Amino acid sequence: MSFYLKAKRLDLSTGGQPIIVLINEFEATDRGLRAGDLVQFCWRDICIYAEVDVTSTLIETGFLGIYSDIWEPYDIPNDEYVTIHITGKTDSIEFIKKKLRGEELDFQEMKAIYQDIADKRLSEIETTYFAATTFNPGFNRTETIHATRAMAETGDILDFGKLVVDKHSIGGIPSKGITPVLVPIIASFGLIIPNTSTRAISSPAGTSDILETLMPVSLNVEKMKEVVAQTGACMIWGGALRLAPADDILIHVERPLNFESYTKMMISIIAKKIATGVTHMVLDMPVGPGTKVHDITKVPYLVDEFVRLGAEFGIKIQVYDRIPKGPDGNGVGPVLEARDLLYILNRHPDAPKKLEDEALKMAGKLLELVEVAPAGKGKEMARQKLESGVAKDKFWEIAKAQGAEREIRPEDLVPGDYRFELMANKSGIITFIDSHEVVEIARHVGCPLIKRAGMYFHKDVGDEVKRGDIFATVYATSDERIDVAKEMYEANPEALIKIE
Amino acid sequence: MSFYLKAKRLDLSTGGQPIIVLINEFEATDRGLRAGDLVQFCWRDICIYAEVDVTSTLIETGFLGIYSDIWEPYDIPNDEYVTIHITGKTDSIEFIKKKLRGEELDFQEMKAIYQDIADKRLSEIETTYFAATTFNPGFNRTETIHATRAMAETGDILDFGKLVVDKHSIGGIPSKGITPVLVPIIASFGLIIPNTSTRAISSPAGTSDILETLMPVSLNVEKMKEVVAQTGACMIWGGALRLAPADDILIHVERPLNFESYTKMMISIIAKKIATGVTHMVLDMPVGPGTKVHDITKVPYLVDEFVRLGAEFGIKIQVYDRIPKGPDGNGVGPVLEARDLLYILNRHPDAPKKLEDEALKMAGKLLELVEVAPAGKGKEMARQKLESGVAKDKFWEIAKAQGAEREIRPEDLVPGDYRFELMANKSGIITFIDSHEVVEIARHVGCPLIKRAGMYFHKDVGDEVKRGDIFATVYATSDERIDVAKEMYEANPEALIKIE
Repeated sequence: MSFYLKAKRLDLSTGGQPIIVLINEFEATDRGLRAGDLVQFCWRDICIYAEVDVTSTLIETGFLGIYSDIWEPYDIPNDEYVTIHITGKTDSIEFIKKKLRGEELDFQEMKAIYQDIADKRLSEIETTYFAATTFNPGFNRTETIHATRAMAETGDILDFGKLVVDKHSIGGIPSKGITPVLVPIIASFGLIIPNTSTRAISSPAGTSDILETLMPVSLNVEKMKEVVAQTGACMIWGGALRLAPADDILIHVERPLNFESYTKMMISIIAKKIATGVTHMVLDMPVGPGTKVHDITKVPYLVDEFVRLGAEFGIKIQVYDRIPKGPDGNGVGPVLEARDLLYILNRHPDAPKKLEDEALKMAGKLLELVEVAPAGKGKEMARQKLESGVAKDKFWEIAKAQGAEREIRPEDLVPGDYRFELMANKSGIITFIDSHEVVEIARHVGCPLIKRAGMYFHKDVGDEVKRGDIFATVYATSDERIDVAKEMYEANPEALIKIE
Repeated sequence: MSFYLKAKRLDLSTGGQPIIVLINEFEATDRGLRAGDLVQFCWRDICIYAEVDVTSTLIETGFLGIYSDIWEPYDIPNDEYVTIHITGKTDSIEFIKKKLRGEELDFQEMKAIYQDIADKRLSEIETTYFAATTFNPGFNRTETIHATRAMAETGDILDFGKLVVDKHSIGGIPSKGITPVLVPIIASFGLIIPNTSTRAISSPAGTSDILETLMPVSLNVEKMKEVVAQTGACMIWGGALRLAPADDILIHVERPLNFESYTKMMISIIAKKIATGVTHMVLDMPVGPGTKVHDITKVPYLVDEFVRLGAEFGIKIQVYDRIPKGPDGNGVGPVLEARDLLYILNRHPDAPKKLEDEALKMAGKLLELVEVAPAGKGKEMARQKLESGVAKDKFWEIAKAQGAEREIRPEDLVPGDYRFELMANKSGIITFIDSHEVVEIARHVGCPLIKRAGMYFHKDVGDEVKRGDIFATVYATSDERIDVAKEMYEANPEALIKIE
């Protein structure tokens, strides 16, 4: 059943998900629609699935209220006719039920589900049921392969050549400066590295949030190809592309729990790499307390599964598993993390040693994986690119290709004006900095939305401190937020830092 | 972190779930809130959890936009100050993750989850993850007992005496007239039967929707107690009470898939019965094609599990499993189903034989279960109450105690003016009427919202028809809806009815 309504732009946003259209209550009843029902609405050649909300006065009969999450990107004008299709349930609902019952899904069934997720044809609740099936007992290996292929095929699959490399982190710990240091090093060896990253999901800053303080990151696929053709690399936000788009929607339903199954983690990472045509990859896997892989006994299993799944799609994976005892860099938050990486590229004395070392180790492993470096020599070869300034030049070459207008110096990056200094409450050696606590404090001062907010660690794990020493500073853009951070820290200082 | 805003009533409704508050975009950024975040807002002694949506013009800074789903029932006025608490995640999130990982939950953990669901402290997505864990591998027996107790304890637990009986159906087939016929029969034996029912979730009419065409059903708990004290029975809508309220929210997340796990089915049914203090119950379990239990090999297992779970809480359950071959009554839809049950009570020649017979069988089993009837004599004793008119009088006694102003005759109930007659496309015996198709057609003509819409079967399974015979009539309140039903039926007549 279809009918026509006139579009009415609403100044309302859900943040992108769920997609809502607003309809007059009388019209809804008349059409047999109830709040929460799914409809498809079409304007010209654009068709979008949306959930119905109802109103009795905000929208007159004959009109369809459209949220800004939709009318803005598609530029739908007021008073244009849109068609509403009252849709039946899609087949993929039956496949989700089948999986919930514990039955195995074949490729066509997986494909139908992922395609419907990508097309926003499944509601938030329906998508969540499917996301839940990736947990215990989860997918078997065959299903995981089907799901990975299905997810990759929901979007574009790019081809940058025969040998395409990348570095990826399973994430989970704050301070994401490793990739922006590694990419220009690798590219300066003439290797192709089309890196895409995310904005913060649950962290104080995603790699894209950090890079965005220095250069445009929201490129479309044509511009991405241009940048890679010109410089051999890119460092962009994946969200503006259509690479495994089902993943972006699944991420949305994972956010409230901040919890992803291992299976889902593998599927998303490999699907995104299939989409950019990657052939060799170093996978950074922080494990142990405070990371996504708490239980280190799971590491051999996970490493093996990642390598197997990659191999199915012709991707050679070198897993780099490590047990971090705190954030990799000193800065936490978009501006402070960007400053850290510029300190490294500029060979500044404040360069965070640990982050630099990890970036060089991973770059080295990638060089050895593609046999550009002999075994055991990769890290040293990577270091030369950094010390010679070649990496810095390459970084700005890529940044400018992406649209950066000028080189930014670390001194140009200034954190928030409101500060609070964290003092050691006893003397000893710092043995652990808890990533979860760091994230909590940083998000309470406004990260990632407030780019100048964050934390800076003056002392790292292994350093000696005396009672009363300042080991970190919290930055914010208002006094009120500083108070919140202070309160959080003072309630339980040992939660953030262990001094022994 | 807390702050104050002024309430602004919005003419917007999501239909009850999710609960949304609307906040100015600038204010949201300033407070570190993003669309989709959970906050708690309090007005006087009422505190409600809600998800944040953002706007830049509909709500000024300093104001909180409240949906009508909230300001109407709680009568929150404009411009009153409300407090917003930015809440951390609740502990129950960790327990949901634990269950997703495949670990067992104890009673305290189950209790925390169900209490947070009842308090609307979990978002739709979080609640859905939990609902998904009731599927494969699901809950073990101990967890199921914990979950049942936890769900019952989220609301009031009533005490109507030492011997309290009830009849319940697991549902799944249209035509819900059995309960309203059975309740007055049972009550006329002096037994206590405090029946609560639901409005339609996925059917053309819930028992409450049918009863509402004849009497008020939305009673509070005080009024319910009064009616039961006075008449020994009630036939009310459970949704206005606080009986296992977590269930009503879980039902909302099950609706999009129209799919409930067996475990969840048992937990909800038993929890609701614990809440009304039931000691003996007949459980109607339609099984086979078109029902909730498609796979009849599962029946012995389900019967056993239901009886065991009931016994844990002192509820003696007699399961009545049966394989229906079509709807129980002739009418489908609120008004047409109400007319069916009045035909039965009034001993009218058009009384649907099968529905009457099933109601008497179940009433008989219940009488035998509590030893009011000797074994094998229950049905006959029930029939006497019906034939003597005692059941009819009891029905209207209960209805009037609930607030009905007058007795309604079946002739007073008139279906929609727009009609479409369904004709047999061949001659033979009707062997099956598909419940799913019946539901589809009935919902497309507007059931349950349009009370006069629905279907009426002139012929039943087992009847002989000639090609061209009218076997059913579809009723609607507009021509357009009749066209939709016609189109649906004509696309595939064999989907609705099998003639052999």
